[in-house]
Amino acid sequence: MFSYDLSGKNKYYTLYECIRDDILRGRLKSGEKLPGKRTLANDLGVSVVTVQTAYEQLLAEGYVTSKERSGYYVCPLDISYRGRQAPKREVSAPQPAQKFAVDFVGGAAPAELFPFSSWARLMRSVLSDCGEHLLERVPCDGDGELKCAISDYLYRARGIAVDPRYIVVGAGAEQLYGTIVQLIGRDKLYAVENPGYRKISGTYELNGARCAFVPVHAEGVDVDRAIALRADVLHISPAHQFPTGAVTPASARARLINDAESRGSYIVEDDYDSEFRLVGKPLQNMYVLDPERVIYINTFTKTLAPSMRMGYMVLPPALYARYLEVFGKTSCCVPLFEQKTLARMISGGAFERHINRLKNYYRGVREELTGALSQLNIPHEVFDTASGLHFTVKFLTAPSDSFIKQRAAECGINIRCLSDYLLAPMDGCQNTVVVNYSGVTYTEVHKFFARAAE
Amino acid sequence: MFSYDLSGKNKYYTLYECIRDDILRGRLKSGEKLPGKRTLANDLGVSVVTVQTAYEQLLAEGYVTSKERSGYYVCPLDISYRGRQAPKREVSAPQPAQKFAVDFVGGAAPAELFPFSSWARLMRSVLSDCGEHLLERVPCDGDGELKCAISDYLYRARGIAVDPRYIVVGAGAEQLYGTIVQLIGRDKLYAVENPGYRKISGTYELNGARCAFVPVHAEGVDVDRAIALRADVLHISPAHQFPTGAVTPASARARLINDAESRGSYIVEDDYDSEFRLVGKPLQNMYVLDPERVIYINTFTKTLAPSMRMGYMVLPPALYARYLEVFGKTSCCVPLFEQKTLARMISGGAFERHINRLKNYYRGVREELTGALSQLNIPHEVFDTASGLHFTVKFLTAPSDSFIKQRAAECGINIRCLSDYLLAPMDGCQNTVVVNYSGVTYTEVHKFFARAAE
Repeated sequence: MFSYDLSGKNKYYTLYECIRDDILRGRLKSGEKLPGKRTLANDLGVSVVTVQTAYEQLLAEGYVTSKERSGYYVCPLDISYRGRQAPKREVSAPQPAQKFAVDFVGGAAPAELFPFSSWARLMRSVLSDCGEHLLERVPCDGDGELKCAISDYLYRARGIAVDPRYIVVGAGAEQLYGTIVQLIGRDKLYAVENPGYRKISGTYELNGARCAFVPVHAEGVDVDRAIALRADVLHISPAHQFPTGAVTPASARARLINDAESRGSYIVEDDYDSEFRLVGKPLQNMYVLDPERVIYINTFTKTLAPSMRMGYMVLPPALYARYLEVFGKTSCCVPLFEQKTLARMISGGAFERHINRLKNYYRGVREELTGALSQLNIPHEVFDTASGLHFTVKFLTAPSDSFIKQRAAECGINIRCLSDYLLAPMDGCQNTVVVNYSGVTYTEVHKFFARAAE
Repeated sequence: MFSYDLSGKNKYYTLYECIRDDILRGRLKSGEKLPGKRTLANDLGVSVVTVQTAYEQLLAEGYVTSKERSGYYVCPLDISYRGRQAPKREVSAPQPAQKFAVDFVGGAAPAELFPFSSWARLMRSVLSDCGEHLLERVPCDGDGELKCAISDYLYRARGIAVDPRYIVVGAGAEQLYGTIVQLIGRDKLYAVENPGYRKISGTYELNGARCAFVPVHAEGVDVDRAIALRADVLHISPAHQFPTGAVTPASARARLINDAESRGSYIVEDDYDSEFRLVGKPLQNMYVLDPERVIYINTFTKTLAPSMRMGYMVLPPALYARYLEVFGKTSCCVPLFEQKTLARMISGGAFERHINRLKNYYRGVREELTGALSQLNIPHEVFDTASGLHFTVKFLTAPSDSFIKQRAAECGINIRCLSDYLLAPMDGCQNTVVVNYSGVTYTEVHKFFARAAE
């Protein structure tokens, strides 16, 4: 006992560890007295201060107790737990994702389209202009400069007049959906579109809310079903629904707004890719019809990059007041640095120039794709509302969805069918592929697409 | 009707807006036929293409329908809703926060201590080294480089061996607490320390979980009560509890681990300011005693800046597997840019140098404060475990907590009492102030503190 090897550096800590391990392993029993400091220092050939410091660490952690003028005693320690080993430290290699030649599933715009040099320049300018202000706590609803820039953009580009105060900046769509549940309540019914992004209902459910499904047909969301559900929150993408591509017409929008008005329920207008209306102007938003019942929500996932993790919502004034009550003392999740950079990108016009470039690019991709499709000698129907970054194609003679995907995969094409996005059973979705071209580079597209259909 | 002024630019859009408003206001009735394109173009003195484009936008939004070889007809539109105005766009000036000369409540380290120039240098190097890779999607649990850097740091500085795989990076403590609820369940009981940070129980409750309170005394968390509660999750700060400053001794830790083992419950070890043990080494972590029942959690709020919004937790392997199931397809909330910068700051040693500088600084502040206190001629007791960035002082003759805070405020001092952090009633907390010196600049401290005690 007490014949420790303290030849390494940091003798006091080694001594502390040795005694601690003896206590943990039961070699030093509860109540046992530790040797006097001078005695142990002599025995081990170290200074009294070393022993003193080790004893103090043991004391601080509660392994020993000290009795005045008497010394240090081992505390009772119930160590029936198995003293599990910490997992070995090893760096696990990341799983390589399956790589397709053409990917109609992933959503990110090709990286080379991102205006990286101007983004980097703005970052540098924010860094040198804002300096240590970047360390300040960001209000829960985001940086004021960014909120104003978003408000100006919404007004300029979309004709939506929003008091910047009611804008809430968050770290992407999922975080904002979670916030909506925390504001409106998890004991409420949330209606989402079917087929649709599983992520939307998944996030609501993960936050404890109940979900119901509203069918979406070619002519838009099924308004009668939506109203019959009497949901507290209806989450829709009226401008361009994913994956059907349906546009909710004005008459349906008006009925949904009337219903929300009369029951005091909310509509979440998820405008995730409305910037990409490739013909004409973006459609008029539901938000402007009723800013007290509609929560407008959008992100920069499609317009900038999914890694940006930034989005925003515009809350009705009453919900915003509640937001401040609940979250007033928290900080915004998005770093101030990214917020300032984006604010400058928007207010300096680079954001809109980038969107225009993207639109031109996607228009070209879409032409390639539809051109290739028109030459297909397989009977098919294209459903394309000239909006957003996807359309659907129904193959009239294909034996099954799995056959289509199998054939596509053999050609190096990753594609999903409408049925893959069904959240509840629904008829009429068979043999329809979702051509989501937001992530494809178009040089290779039509060749592959044609090959897949052979 | 149809005598619109289209003198501005963007004639087609103006025409679209005019007709749309006529439909919305009922001036154009359901079923009414729009004028022929040529007729209207002649009447308004614009090109046929302009009218055509406006009609197409109306068609796309569902305001009109088109009948082949006949023309465009107004759709039925139920517009009983009040057609609310969007809120006026106005920039609301931020509320100026009340400014105190000395603030013992706010938690941020003085900004001038932050190694801003080296942080900015690292940011620039990340920007130029990683370039467009910064746009890549970040795995749900964070960037691998940062996870490895954190694992190395935990091993080097704290003696905790962690497989970097089990580290999950998140946007600050609140987000991680929310994730814990989503992993373990909201139908479970979460026990938190009382007195304590309201934020902890508040975040659990906001995520739908039930909370119970475990008293914390000078000698640490009340283990008997903690065990009697049979909570599914026990959230504690064993190294240094806020606000009591209590350190949970080794024997109590062992009993809590035994209890978690036997019931299959979890312990969240919130190590939020453990780096700042000002005497000796940081205390041994509970995580190393049982990496299968303890979730280790820490942030960079105290060590870097609250605006950084970065934290991490180490999950037991079984919970990590569940994490991947639930969140595998989502992206990490923290921008890759910040993650890479922090990874380099840690692996290059700048992070630990910064912590050492902070420790030296805070040691000085603490000496000033205790020096000033020792000269007070008001009876008081200091409770200081030489850990973390706060201690408590009990004023034995003060008439009430509100009297103490009132006197302090008159001297420009913002301070809270232990009772302000009570989440459930508890005796023995009166007349005790929490001297949280993490945010103070020490040149002014002792002068003010002495003045407050007059």
